Amino acid sequence: MSSSFALDPQLARDSHPLAALPLSELRLMNDARFPWLLLVPRRLDVAEIIDLADIDRAALFDEMVIVSTALRTVTGAYKINVAALGNIVRQLHVHVIARFQNDAAWPRPVWGSGAPVSYEAPARDKLIGRIKDALPA
Amino acid sequence: MSSSFALDPQLARDSHPLAALPLSELRLMNDARFPWLLLVPRRLDVAEIIDLADIDRAALFDEMVIVSTALRTVTGAYKINVAALGNIVRQLHVHVIARFQNDAAWPRPVWGSGAPVSYEAPARDKLIGRIKDALPA
Repeated sequence: MSSSFALDPQLARDSHPLAALPLSELRLMNDARFPWLLLVPRRLDVAEIIDLADIDRAALFDEMVIVSTALRTVTGAYKINVAALGNIVRQLHVHVIARFQNDAAWPRPVWGSGAPVSYEAPARDKLIGRIKDALPA
Repeated sequence: MSSSFALDPQLARDSHPLAALPLSELRLMNDARFPWLLLVPRRLDVAEIIDLADIDRAALFDEMVIVSTALRTVTGAYKINVAALGNIVRQLHVHVIARFQNDAAWPRPVWGSGAPVSYEAPARDKLIGRIKDALPA
């Protein structure tokens, strides 16, 4: 991680490190109701995908595809939700979420839907391991 | 529009045509509370960005950038929300939404937040004209 990059404190509190991709920190949201990943480009003071440099934006799009594919492979999700909102935490981050027709928010979006359920550490670490294994080497 | 492509009936009902981009139909959601665009790739039986052919996915990402930029230029949005959810309408579509700190849902996502407010036709057509003018020729 570049020394000048600092992860937003709320993102740090709500998620767990999973992998360092070429552009982004990949993190697992600490909500066992949904397999829910975050991509956080290591760039300061960028809130919008359209404000990334072209080369960084291309890298982010690549990472969205790689991470969506790995998450679907691991979870067998019925639907992948991909979103860059940033209304609350302004630091650019992209949500990649595995959705199921029987999940706690279906068919609504996950944001603001009930209270998060923290992972037990073994379940969290097992999921993290499976996602790491599904990412390209 | 390819003769084999058919817009999902719910998307057709909830939005108004704005432009035909190289890959996608660009449409304006009929909700005057939020300047809210949809990109709908003219591809059948694709629900996920990761299931598009590589060349189509690159075109969609280009169109997301072009449309986000035009929407911010026209509206002066505080934040652009970009999302591919598809939990209710499975046909692939990408939301591009201009958000303001005093809008009807802020800081929550727009989906499921209160009831849509239909545009008056003149206001709708004026906004469509301004967005068309802000798209690259």
